[in-house]
Amino acid sequence: MHEQQLRTLLDEVRAGSVDVEAALARLRHMPFEDLGFAKVDHHRALRQGMPEVILAKGKTPEQVSAIAGRLLEVSKNVLITRADTATAAHVQKQLEGAEYFPLSGAIRFWRDKTQTGKGKIAVVSAGTSDIPVAEEAQVTAEVMGNLVETTYDIGVAGIHRLIDNRARLAEARVIVVCAGMEGALASAVGGLVACPVIAVPTSIGYGASFQGLAALLGMLNSCASNVTVVNIDNGFGAGYVASLINRL
Amino acid sequence: MHEQQLRTLLDEVRAGSVDVEAALARLRHMPFEDLGFAKVDHHRALRQGMPEVILAKGKTPEQVSAIAGRLLEVSKNVLITRADTATAAHVQKQLEGAEYFPLSGAIRFWRDKTQTGKGKIAVVSAGTSDIPVAEEAQVTAEVMGNLVETTYDIGVAGIHRLIDNRARLAEARVIVVCAGMEGALASAVGGLVACPVIAVPTSIGYGASFQGLAALLGMLNSCASNVTVVNIDNGFGAGYVASLINRL
Amino acid sequence: MHEQQLRTLLDEVRAGSVDVEAALARLRHMPFEDLGFAKVDHHRALRQGMPEVILAKGKTPEQVSAIAGRLLEVSKNVLITRADTATAAHVQKQLEGAEYFPLSGAIRFWRDKTQTGKGKIAVVSAGTSDIPVAEEAQVTAEVMGNLVETTYDIGVAGIHRLIDNRARLAEARVIVVCAGMEGALASAVGGLVACPVIAVPTSIGYGASFQGLAALLGMLNSCASNVTVVNIDNGFGAGYVASLINRL
Amino acid sequence: MHEQQLRTLLDEVRAGSVDVEAALARLRHMPFEDLGFAKVDHHRALRQGMPEVILAKGKTPEQVSAIAGRLLEVSKNVLITRADTATAAHVQKQLEGAEYFPLSGAIRFWRDKTQTGKGKIAVVSAGTSDIPVAEEAQVTAEVMGNLVETTYDIGVAGIHRLIDNRARLAEARVIVVCAGMEGALASAVGGLVACPVIAVPTSIGYGASFQGLAALLGMLNSCASNVTVVNIDNGFGAGYVASLINRL
Amino acid sequence: MHEQQLRTLLDEVRAGSVDVEAALARLRHMPFEDLGFAKVDHHRALRQGMPEVILAKGKTPEQVSAIAGRLLEVSKNVLITRADTATAAHVQKQLEGAEYFPLSGAIRFWRDKTQTGKGKIAVVSAGTSDIPVAEEAQVTAEVMGNLVETTYDIGVAGIHRLIDNRARLAEARVIVVCAGMEGALASAVGGLVACPVIAVPTSIGYGASFQGLAALLGMLNSCASNVTVVNIDNGFGAGYVASLINRL
Amino acid sequence: MHEQQLRTLLDEVRAGSVDVEAALARLRHMPFEDLGFAKVDHHRALRQGMPEVILAKGKTPEQVSAIAGRLLEVSKNVLITRADTATAAHVQKQLEGAEYFPLSGAIRFWRDKTQTGKGKIAVVSAGTSDIPVAEEAQVTAEVMGNLVETTYDIGVAGIHRLIDNRARLAEARVIVVCAGMEGALASAVGGLVACPVIAVPTSIGYGASFQGLAALLGMLNSCASNVTVVNIDNGFGAGYVASLINRL
Amino acid sequence: MHEQQLRTLLDEVRAGSVDVEAALARLRHMPFEDLGFAKVDHHRALRQGMPEVILAKGKTPEQVSAIAGRLLEVSKNVLITRADTATAAHVQKQLEGAEYFPLSGAIRFWRDKTQTGKGKIAVVSAGTSDIPVAEEAQVTAEVMGNLVETTYDIGVAGIHRLIDNRARLAEARVIVVCAGMEGALASAVGGLVACPVIAVPTSIGYGASFQGLAALLGMLNSCASNVTVVNIDNGFGAGYVASLINRL
Amino acid sequence: MHEQQLRTLLDEVRAGSVDVEAALARLRHMPFEDLGFAKVDHHRALRQGMPEVILAKGKTPEQVSAIAGRLLEVSKNVLITRADTATAAHVQKQLEGAEYFPLSGAIRFWRDKTQTGKGKIAVVSAGTSDIPVAEEAQVTAEVMGNLVETTYDIGVAGIHRLIDNRARLAEARVIVVCAGMEGALASAVGGLVACPVIAVPTSIGYGASFQGLAALLGMLNSCASNVTVVNIDNGFGAGYVASLINRL
Repeated sequence: MHEQQLRTLLDEVRAGSVDVEAALARLRHMPFEDLGFAKVDHHRALRQGMPEVILAKGKTPEQVSAIAGRLLEVSKNVLITRADTATAAHVQKQLEGAEYFPLSGAIRFWRDKTQTGKGKIAVVSAGTSDIPVAEEAQVTAEVMGNLVETTYDIGVAGIHRLIDNRARLAEARVIVVCAGMEGALASAVGGLVACPVIAVPTSIGYGASFQGLAALLGMLNSCASNVTVVNIDNGFGAGYVASLINRL
Repeated sequence: MHEQQLRTLLDEVRAGSVDVEAALARLRHMPFEDLGFAKVDHHRALRQGMPEVILAKGKTPEQVSAIAGRLLEVSKNVLITRADTATAAHVQKQLEGAEYFPLSGAIRFWRDKTQTGKGKIAVVSAGTSDIPVAEEAQVTAEVMGNLVETTYDIGVAGIHRLIDNRARLAEARVIVVCAGMEGALASAVGGLVACPVIAVPTSIGYGASFQGLAALLGMLNSCASNVTVVNIDNGFGAGYVASLINRL
Repeated sequence: MHEQQLRTLLDEVRAGSVDVEAALARLRHMPFEDLGFAKVDHHRALRQGMPEVILAKGKTPEQVSAIAGRLLEVSKNVLITRADTATAAHVQKQLEGAEYFPLSGAIRFWRDKTQTGKGKIAVVSAGTSDIPVAEEAQVTAEVMGNLVETTYDIGVAGIHRLIDNRARLAEARVIVVCAGMEGALASAVGGLVACPVIAVPTSIGYGASFQGLAALLGMLNSCASNVTVVNIDNGFGAGYVASLINRL
Repeated sequence: MHEQQLRTLLDEVRAGSVDVEAALARLRHMPFEDLGFAKVDHHRALRQGMPEVILAKGKTPEQVSAIAGRLLEVSKNVLITRADTATAAHVQKQLEGAEYFPLSGAIRFWRDKTQTGKGKIAVVSAGTSDIPVAEEAQVTAEVMGNLVETTYDIGVAGIHRLIDNRARLAEARVIVVCAGMEGALASAVGGLVACPVIAVPTSIGYGASFQGLAALLGMLNSCASNVTVVNIDNGFGAGYVASLINRL
Repeated sequence: MHEQQLRTLLDEVRAGSVDVEAALARLRHMPFEDLGFAKVDHHRALRQGMPEVILAKGKTPEQVSAIAGRLLEVSKNVLITRADTATAAHVQKQLEGAEYFPLSGAIRFWRDKTQTGKGKIAVVSAGTSDIPVAEEAQVTAEVMGNLVETTYDIGVAGIHRLIDNRARLAEARVIVVCAGMEGALASAVGGLVACPVIAVPTSIGYGASFQGLAALLGMLNSCASNVTVVNIDNGFGAGYVASLINRL
Repeated sequence: MHEQQLRTLLDEVRAGSVDVEAALARLRHMPFEDLGFAKVDHHRALRQGMPEVILAKGKTPEQVSAIAGRLLEVSKNVLITRADTATAAHVQKQLEGAEYFPLSGAIRFWRDKTQTGKGKIAVVSAGTSDIPVAEEAQVTAEVMGNLVETTYDIGVAGIHRLIDNRARLAEARVIVVCAGMEGALASAVGGLVACPVIAVPTSIGYGASFQGLAALLGMLNSCASNVTVVNIDNGFGAGYVASLINRL
Repeated sequence: MHEQQLRTLLDEVRAGSVDVEAALARLRHMPFEDLGFAKVDHHRALRQGMPEVILAKGKTPEQVSAIAGRLLEVSKNVLITRADTATAAHVQKQLEGAEYFPLSGAIRFWRDKTQTGKGKIAVVSAGTSDIPVAEEAQVTAEVMGNLVETTYDIGVAGIHRLIDNRARLAEARVIVVCAGMEGALASAVGGLVACPVIAVPTSIGYGASFQGLAALLGMLNSCASNVTVVNIDNGFGAGYVASLINRL
Repeated sequence: MHEQQLRTLLDEVRAGSVDVEAALARLRHMPFEDLGFAKVDHHRALRQGMPEVILAKGKTPEQVSAIAGRLLEVSKNVLITRADTATAAHVQKQLEGAEYFPLSGAIRFWRDKTQTGKGKIAVVSAGTSDIPVAEEAQVTAEVMGNLVETTYDIGVAGIHRLIDNRARLAEARVIVVCAGMEGALASAVGGLVACPVIAVPTSIGYGASFQGLAALLGMLNSCASNVTVVNIDNGFGAGYVASLINRL
């Protein structure tokens, strides 16, 4: 069915009855394909400017490999998130070019390294334990065509370390801040810079951190106006939005 | 003290020992002034690209007028948020040029209407009751130099209304989505467009909406990757970040 | 004791002193049998129109097999939910005709396939990970005598997929929607159709999904008026109520 | 624009190129009208089988009257929920035929009393204080064309009262149960009958009822399989879904 | 030191300067002994009328055996709760007369079976899965000198089963009700009888049962006035208080 | 209908075919009367040993007076709880013998002062602000035929005050402890005495007391085994259960 | 009774059989006086080093004045917290020397201004709206004999303001930090100084601040090790503990 | 870079242009070193008066050993918290002088045993299960140069045990109270002594203890004014602050 729609549309484009912009607009909302257990949407690259991302959690290694294989036929860059080592091993055996990041569980196929981002994205973390989440943001932003600079372990309990990095942060076009416990780094960074800050609460902490709730609430209530927030441990989402912003 | 620092810095600039970029960088983190009950930070305009914003809630009408008066001496545009009618009346009596928006409680001094935003910001709401929050986002984005287009009452329960507005949304460079109850509009809009979406949960609803918690959690868990979230009812924050993004 | 009651009642029926309708009404609230660790209620089929359902979770494989065996003596169709593979193996070894669904953990004895439902029940899921819950709903509705049609992976982040399935959904007499994360699919489906929608929040997600709480709250606050909600991951309950409705 | 779509569609119907069923299907998702502050959707009656319902809360009396007036031009029956006495007075002054129910705050225009429901809907409440919510369900179900029978104050603390009403409940095609505090009535009714039960937790109670949360959680965890749940105090939603079911 | 106090006190009693009642009163608040890792309070039997109870959870098998051994030197009956099988094995090897209840994890030394309770304590459970908690209550009440009668699986979804047991329940002097999920059985039993009911919410359930929170809130909000509540899964506490009441 | 049942039953008793005990048992579950807005259950006195209690909250003054009037025709003692001053004024004007307690909002008709309780009930409060709740417990226990002794302001922050009252507490047969903030008094009293303790968390406190939640959780987790808990601010429930226990 | 105890003790002291230290130790736990509605504990000054503090909230103006009057007979300094203007007016009319602080609602009788604190206590607030809580801390610490220095509006969104105050903070012996919203100031101050920091979350904020919960959780999870926390808005408690520390 | 700063500063000190106090002040906020995965801050000892503390949780044994090794080059005392046995084994193999505390998971290098604390710190626990948290506080306070006295198992359910220890507690300069379940010990100790009390809620308990939330809320709402609170199970933080206070 979709094939038919597509052919008609392209005929119209060729005939001149539909111009290229209009065709693009219609393409953005049209085709997808059915693997039985998941719709694979080849046009997402067109529609949202990047390849399909596969959330490995809750899928078998075989399912992940199958979906990734299909996507790689139509897309140069593919990102898999939250993959355990078994899934990574399976994917790397089945498909060439898979780069695995064990801290964050990301698997990356990065065959087109064109930089589409206009400036630098800074990814910072409050502590050593927040690095897995920060890495997910970094890997995502890179595969989406951005220059990424990471700075780790600059939490507010040693505020001079943050101050020492002020110049580097000021050069970024958008900043991703990953912090657990009280999540105060987002506000502190937000107050230092003039660019958008995307805050990622992490589940690092214990007791009354309630698996990241404390950091989440802290970041939502940030007294710095340039801070927006994504889900707990959602490094991918932060890297994704940072990429969209940096592309503008 | 700050005056002295400033004079020294400018002397150095004049003498050539400090170049302009370096001077700007140092200026960004220097002076503020003390009114006794609040630090008024005249350089925030420099540092973050816009005038100080005054949160009227928790301040007396007299305090609001006094702070606003001081800011208007050094800044063309001033925004006051969450002002009740008594505060608005006081401010309008004391200071010229105050525009009051009773739905959202915003008061705006908009003397410099230069457009610094590069494209259009769309502000949409799920229902009629979300308009006060949407208005706060709109007023904020406008006073920060942006073209804003609003579309109200396009919640997912009548999804054809949303589809009908797809073209308009696709033209925006960044979109602010205000929704209470289940907050599903953020995901639906996020899935339709390729630009960043800033979601504002509103406290509209009853029972298990828990004053906006349901919408907040829904938006944080959005299955659309281009969505970030601000605090419940924080139209100002959404308009602010949208402006920063649109300025890039 | 119950035997005595039953005999007396049937005598009365035979003697004509109690008519059939009255006897049925009394039967609905009378007998059950004691296995020691659980009351087995053979008359539930009479009282609620379907066989006893066994929740395997919290019972040993032996207990599950014993209860199922007793029920199969008086009832053609029996459903076991939330069984792990050990229980499934035990049941399949002890009792003939057991069909096991490993995703949802359901075990089904489906010996009477009469269709009592009047129309089609649609079971839809937002993502691939929600399929186990959807399967539980499907298996339940089928064993209760319904035609079930499933559509998976049509979440709101790709709203065109949902729109593409509008016609199929419009044909259903009642729809079960399984969705985790923000659970927005329930509202979107509710807005598209005129029939009752039973929403099942799933525990799929992470961070601020709080094991399904976000989806649950979202569904309870649905802006579509035709949506009711069951417990998190309760595919069985949704399939059960959908069956009751479809039988009307 | 919509006008144009409509005309084209009707032309096609007249020309025979589109048959009536197809035209109906397309009409279901097309037109709505803009009053400036709210989309009035005249086709909702077509799409979902009943007139637009206006949630008065958060709207001014003038807005409510204006929307209601517009709707009454195209629809015989209109329901306004959660109206305070000021709004009721305004509506009754502006528009003829408004019936006001002060307990629940409902305003009803009931000009077409055709019964489209196939059987009886029972609405029951656990206590006297739950009556406002029950009344909202009753008023809604009636205006949607149903015979409604109410039974109040049969909470489980006096379980013989419930037992005494068993026969009446058994005659209903669908039952709405309104209960606050621990909400146990839903399970007890669910266990007594074979039809679908729609449970409405009410905010009645104090202390650890947490404004209806205790009843909500209790109902979601009902051990009776025929129970689904709507939002706290959402008598309207329960009456609405009960009507959809009774119409089948 | 305590020894000295004790000797002095007994001397005084013998000399007639302190009478027996006064001596008892003073004894109630005096001696305990230190094992290094826990105070063993031999006089608790005197002060509260029963032996020390050992919570095994969080203690090593060796610690449990050591404490139990000391207590058995001065007390006939000792109860250990929440013991895993390893602890049970260790205790049974070290100490004679240990009776182990694997469902609840209780270990009981019951050497003095005098019945001090005045009537019967009924322990009931809503479902099969609640039996471990009910068993803990039963074992506790028995070792404290009571006649206990258990009735399992009489939850409100089959309310006729509860009604059938009304007569047995009416004979009890105090009733312990164990129920998970929505916990409605406590209210239903409370409404049927005139005696005190001690409700034990259990963690049985899933999803929105939130590990017993739903049952806990339900029981706290019981519309039956004769219901009090103990902690989730606290069968011991319920059996303990029931014993105190039955002894009056 | 009920009248007929009652007559038949009494005929049988007179004829000797039903003995008195059996008749009593059947009476316990039979009659009630309908005022339209609430079932008035005259036999509750028989069934649960005390008159109907009216919760005034959520009822109009007229409703409260009407229900109270009916109850006073068949019962000597009637208790109204949570009445505001307007309701109290109305009741006192309509009905003779109404005693009003403004702190707790209780209204008491106490015409039969027979003491049915066997011992003394102690009601204690942690602070001055907890007295309204304690008073509700006291008024309830008195009207149910008990000798009540109150001791206020003995919270654990001044533990010597508690120790000084040990002797008085030790004389009670059952103790009601009312405490807000951290609710620690329940544990401290529980550890001092051997009788049952009914803990009432109060909503006194601020901030992280969360309207009594802190005290409620504290009491549910009491390390003293003789403590059971009722709802926040539920002085009535505590007084009621204390009476049932004291009557044993 | 207490009088008798006191006389005996003093006799013993005079006779030399009890030395002064021992007498002090016994005095610490002895006498208090009963006003009927509250125990007035004159020896708290002795026991805890400062006069009784009266929490006005939940007490009538008359009660507050009466308690204050009694305390002023035996103590030079008295502090009343959370008094509204009506209470303040009543107290000032009844008792001489009452100083009222309307922001925080504190009333202070400060007749002995001896400084017992060894160093300076710094009280800082993140924003203007936190000043009422900070004032309560300041008033408390002053009346307990400390030099207090306040610095307001130095929240982390303008981190240079905090840095500018580093030297002043470094001079303090103990610091009280009052902050609402995300409460990040506590961590930032904690990281800058080496002394104990007492963090007071305030209820300032909206939406997901949940009346101070966000700040509370943030402070409890502070990554600075020198931070402890008191209840939301508990300026008094912070000032009290700061005084105890400064006195060491 | 930092080396250069340091050299310059020391030159200035030698030259007399910067005096010692000023040099110390500048040193406090200057250097740190980068190991790649964590900033090691050698000057924390200077700035906050004690060596760096390493949180082992979330770090590999190798990382912990590496960081500890570096710190031991510049600092005599090093503390590692929350280390599992694998980490302890690795550290003990790599580095000399490591003392391991398996209950709390602390590893301590204690080479400089100078006592800098002025008095005694008392560490008390309510139950045996709270000892691991108490041990963490003890180990921390000792390595920071304090005399620590521990008293375990004195919870309020046996309040005479607490009273018996009053004299010991009264000698402490600051007290750390570790308690789970209802956490009432903090209030009881706070009421007995005049010194600051640092309360540590522990996660000991079950059901409605919600992993320490009940104890946390109880302690935050303590009616004793001398109590401040740290995070759940944060024995380290309590020991740290107690040390800071005891050093004054």
